[in-house]
Amino acid sequence: MQNQMQHWLDKRAALTPDRLALIDGKEELTFRELRERSQRTARKLSGLGIRQGAVVGLLCTSSADFVALVHALTYLGAILMPLNTRLTAHELSFQIEDAACMHLIYDEANGQLAEEVLGRLPQLLLIQAEGLSELQETECSLTAYIDAEAVQSIMYTSGTTGAPKGVMLTYGNHWSSAVGSVLNLGLSSTERWLAAVPLFHISGLSIIWRSVIYGMTIIIHRKFDPANANRAILEQGVTIMSVVSNMLARMLEDLGGRTYPPEFRCMLLGGGPAPRPLLESCAAKGIPVYQTYGMTETASQIVTLPPEYALSKLGSVGKPLFQAEIRIAGERGGDALPGEAGEILVRGPNVTKGYWNRPQATAEAMKGGWLATGDIGYLDEDGFLYVLDRRKDLIISGGENVYPAEIEAALLQHPAVKEAGVTGVADERWGQVPIACVVLREDAQLSEEELREYLKDKLARYKIPARFYFVNMLPRNASGKLLRRELPALAVQAEQAAEQS
Amino acid sequence: MQNQMQHWLDKRAALTPDRLALIDGKEELTFRELRERSQRTARKLSGLGIRQGAVVGLLCTSSADFVALVHALTYLGAILMPLNTRLTAHELSFQIEDAACMHLIYDEANGQLAEEVLGRLPQLLLIQAEGLSELQETECSLTAYIDAEAVQSIMYTSGTTGAPKGVMLTYGNHWSSAVGSVLNLGLSSTERWLAAVPLFHISGLSIIWRSVIYGMTIIIHRKFDPANANRAILEQGVTIMSVVSNMLARMLEDLGGRTYPPEFRCMLLGGGPAPRPLLESCAAKGIPVYQTYGMTETASQIVTLPPEYALSKLGSVGKPLFQAEIRIAGERGGDALPGEAGEILVRGPNVTKGYWNRPQATAEAMKGGWLATGDIGYLDEDGFLYVLDRRKDLIISGGENVYPAEIEAALLQHPAVKEAGVTGVADERWGQVPIACVVLREDAQLSEEELREYLKDKLARYKIPARFYFVNMLPRNASGKLLRRELPALAVQAEQAAEQS
Repeated sequence: MQNQMQHWLDKRAALTPDRLALIDGKEELTFRELRERSQRTARKLSGLGIRQGAVVGLLCTSSADFVALVHALTYLGAILMPLNTRLTAHELSFQIEDAACMHLIYDEANGQLAEEVLGRLPQLLLIQAEGLSELQETECSLTAYIDAEAVQSIMYTSGTTGAPKGVMLTYGNHWSSAVGSVLNLGLSSTERWLAAVPLFHISGLSIIWRSVIYGMTIIIHRKFDPANANRAILEQGVTIMSVVSNMLARMLEDLGGRTYPPEFRCMLLGGGPAPRPLLESCAAKGIPVYQTYGMTETASQIVTLPPEYALSKLGSVGKPLFQAEIRIAGERGGDALPGEAGEILVRGPNVTKGYWNRPQATAEAMKGGWLATGDIGYLDEDGFLYVLDRRKDLIISGGENVYPAEIEAALLQHPAVKEAGVTGVADERWGQVPIACVVLREDAQLSEEELREYLKDKLARYKIPARFYFVNMLPRNASGKLLRRELPALAVQAEQAAEQS
Repeated sequence: MQNQMQHWLDKRAALTPDRLALIDGKEELTFRELRERSQRTARKLSGLGIRQGAVVGLLCTSSADFVALVHALTYLGAILMPLNTRLTAHELSFQIEDAACMHLIYDEANGQLAEEVLGRLPQLLLIQAEGLSELQETECSLTAYIDAEAVQSIMYTSGTTGAPKGVMLTYGNHWSSAVGSVLNLGLSSTERWLAAVPLFHISGLSIIWRSVIYGMTIIIHRKFDPANANRAILEQGVTIMSVVSNMLARMLEDLGGRTYPPEFRCMLLGGGPAPRPLLESCAAKGIPVYQTYGMTETASQIVTLPPEYALSKLGSVGKPLFQAEIRIAGERGGDALPGEAGEILVRGPNVTKGYWNRPQATAEAMKGGWLATGDIGYLDEDGFLYVLDRRKDLIISGGENVYPAEIEAALLQHPAVKEAGVTGVADERWGQVPIACVVLREDAQLSEEELREYLKDKLARYKIPARFYFVNMLPRNASGKLLRRELPALAVQAEQAAEQS
C-alpha cells in the first residue's frame, strides 16, 4: 500500500460503474450512482461547514444513505464517528464531547435521541439526514487522493476504567483489513455480503470498505430479522454474511428443514465464543461457518478459522490473517509455550495506532508495536488460537460489548450504593447478560426497580443488568481488587438467602 | 502494506500447510514441503557464500526446483536475477557483469550455456542446481521478516539505447501486483494457475508470488506445448492461465471442437496486441479472455480488460488495477483528451523504483513520480486504454520482447556493415518477427548467410532477423533519425528489385 491512493469510490466507479454497490430494500445503487450521491452529499455537507479533519457524528440506522454519508465524509476529509443508536443521550454526549465533535448527522428514526443529546450539548450542530435532499450543493473540492495514514473513523469502546475511548482507524487500517480478508475468504465477481449487523459497528463499517475495494454488493438489512436474513440467503444470492452467535442461532431456528444454496459460502461468525451445539448444528446443515476473533482496534477480524477446521479445532478462532500476527505473552516475559495461556497481543497494518486524545491509554495498550488486547488465550501446537477470557471481563451480549466497569461506575453514582460488582452470566438468547451485585450504604433502602429506573437514562438498555443482588460484601483479593469471577457464586447464595427469608 | 511483513512462505505454510503449492509433472509439493525445501536450499546456498544483498543469477528451466530456489534466495535476503535461457552467452555475460553478480545457479539443461558464460567471466562461481541435493546444510539465520522496500529481483530489459538495463522490483512491488490482481480477478480456494510462460519472465515470476500470497497451486509446464496446456485445463482443474497471443492461437488450433470446463475462468492474455479473429474465436468458444497491458517495470499486468468488454472494447487492454493509475501525456503538457494519443505514463505501488545502477536512465524514465513507458496510446471516453505503438519500436515475437536498437547495434559491429535498421513485421505464428535493412560499406561483400552466422553468438535466436535486405540507404528524418516505420516499405522495394535483377 502506498501512502496516497486514488479515492476508493472514484476508483471503483471507474472500474465497475454498472455493478450494484448496494441493495437496501427496494432501493438499488450502482457504484456510479453511489459515487454521484456521495459526492452530492459531500457538497451539501461542505455548505454546512464540515471541513477536513472535523469529527462528524453519525447517529443513523443502516441504510443506503448511511453508506453514502460515510463516503461523503471521506470526500471532505472529515473523520467519521459512527454512533451506536442503542446508547442513551448520556452515553452519546460523553463520546461527542470527548471527540470534540461539532456536527451530528441523524436520521428520523433517531430524532428524539438526537434532540436529547442537543439538550445536553447545545453547541452541537444537528443535521437531519433526510433533510439533506432539499439543500443546495456548495462548490468545494473533493478529495481525489486518500492518505493511508489519515484517520478515517473514531469508534468508541470501553475498557477497564469504564470510560469509553475513541479507537482511531486510518484508511490504511481499513485497506489492510479488506486485503487480509480477501486473501483468506477469496472473492468472486458475484459477491453479495449481507450486512444485518449495524453499520455503526466495525463489523458493519468494514463491509462498506470491502464493497468499494472488492466491487461487491452489500445487501443492507436495517434491522436483523432471522426470517428476512434467511430469505436473502435463499432467494437473493447472498454469498457471505456477518453474524454473532445469537443471530446465527435464531436463523437456524427459523431455517428449519431448509438448506442454504451452494453460492452461500461464508457465515462469518464473530463477536464472542460460539456454543458447541450451535457449531455442530451448522455442520450438520452444511453451513460454512468461519469463526473469527477481532475487535474495533483491529478494524474487524484479525484471526479466522476456516470451516474445514470448524469441528476438528472446535473452540478455536483460527490463525491470524496474512500480514497480521499474534503472540501470547508468557508469564516470564517472552512468548508463552503452546498450550500456555497468557495475554493475546496482536500486530499488523490493520491494527489501530491508538486512542483519540488518550496518549496514556495508547501507551498502556501498545507494547513494543504490539497491541495488548487484554484477552487471555493460548495457541495450540498447530498455531490455532483459543480465547479463554475476554478482555477486562468483557461481557458480549447479543454481539454488543458490555464492560462491567462501565456499569459499576454508573451504579456507584447512586447515593445509596456503596459498592457494585458486575459480571456476565450465560443466557440462552443473548449468549451472555450482565448481572450486578450491590452493597448498599448503611441504613440505605433501595429496591431493584428503583435501581433499574435510575440506570435507564445512563446506560443503553442492553447494558442494564438482567438481575440485581443485594449483598453484604463483594469478593476481593488481598489488595482489594474486585474478583468478578466469583460474583456468579455470590449471586446464587444471595438468591438462596432471599428465598429462605 | 507495512514495511515489515512476515516471510510470505512462512506465513503461507502456517496458514495452509497441506494445500498444494505446485505441481511439476509427477512432483507435487505442499506449502509445508515447499517451505522445508526452500529453507534447506537456503542453508546450502549460504554455505556457498551467498549473503544478504548479493545478486544471484538463476539460469534454469521452469520447475519445482526453480520455485524453491527463488524462495531460498529470499530467506537469505539475496537478490534474484532470473536469466532468460534463450539468450546467448554474450548477452548473459553482459547482464551478469552489469549486475555485479558473483554467483550463477544453473540446471543441467542449461549446463553448456553456463560453461560458455564461465568462459567469458572466469571469476563467476557456478552452482549446479541438481548438485545442491548432495551438499551439506550450513547453520545460518534465515529471514523471518521481509522488508517491503528491499529489492527482490533484477530483470533485464532493453530500451532505445540497445543496452539492457536491470529493472529493480521490490517485495512491495510484487505484493502490490498480487493484491491488485486478486481484486480484479477474484480468488477461490481451489485456484490453480497454469504457468507455461517461463518463470524467468515477470509473467512467470509473478505467479510464484501470487501462489504464496493467495495460497494457490501453480501447475508448472517446463515448456509450452499446446496439447499439454489444453490437457491441464481439461483434466487438471486449471482455473487461470497466463498466455501470449501466439500460445493462445496454438491452443485454439489444438482444442478443435472441445470446450474448456466452467472452472476455467481466466485466460490472462498479455505480451502484445491480440488479433481480432483470435479474440472472436475465443468468444465463440466461451473462453474468458482477459487482455492485459504490463511490463517488467510494472511487476506484470497493470491494466486489464475483463471478458465482459472483450468484444465491445475490442483492441483495448482495459483499465488500471486498483491502486494503479495511468495517464496519457498530452502534446502541450498535461493530460491528453479522450481519444488523443500520447505517451502512456503509469504510477502505482507495483511500479519499479528504477534501473539497477542507472541513475540517469531512471531519471529519464521517471517523470514526477510517473514511469514513462515509451508506449503510445489513448484513453477512450469511458477510460479504456488502447495501445497504439509499443515502446521504442519494440517488437514482440512469441511473447519475447525484441528491441530493434539492440539488433542494430549487433549488426553495426560487423566491419562490412555501414548502417542497419531493424523493425518488426507481422508473422502468422509469432505475431511479429524482426527484419533488417542493411547498408554495406563501399566495396564490401556480404551474404545473408554470413550475417546470420555472425549474429548467432551475439543474439538469442528469436532476435535474429527473419529476413535481411541489402539497401543503398536508410529512411531518416531531417535530423538523421532512423524512421523505422518506413523500413517495411523499403524491404518490399528491395525484394522487388532483387526479383527483377
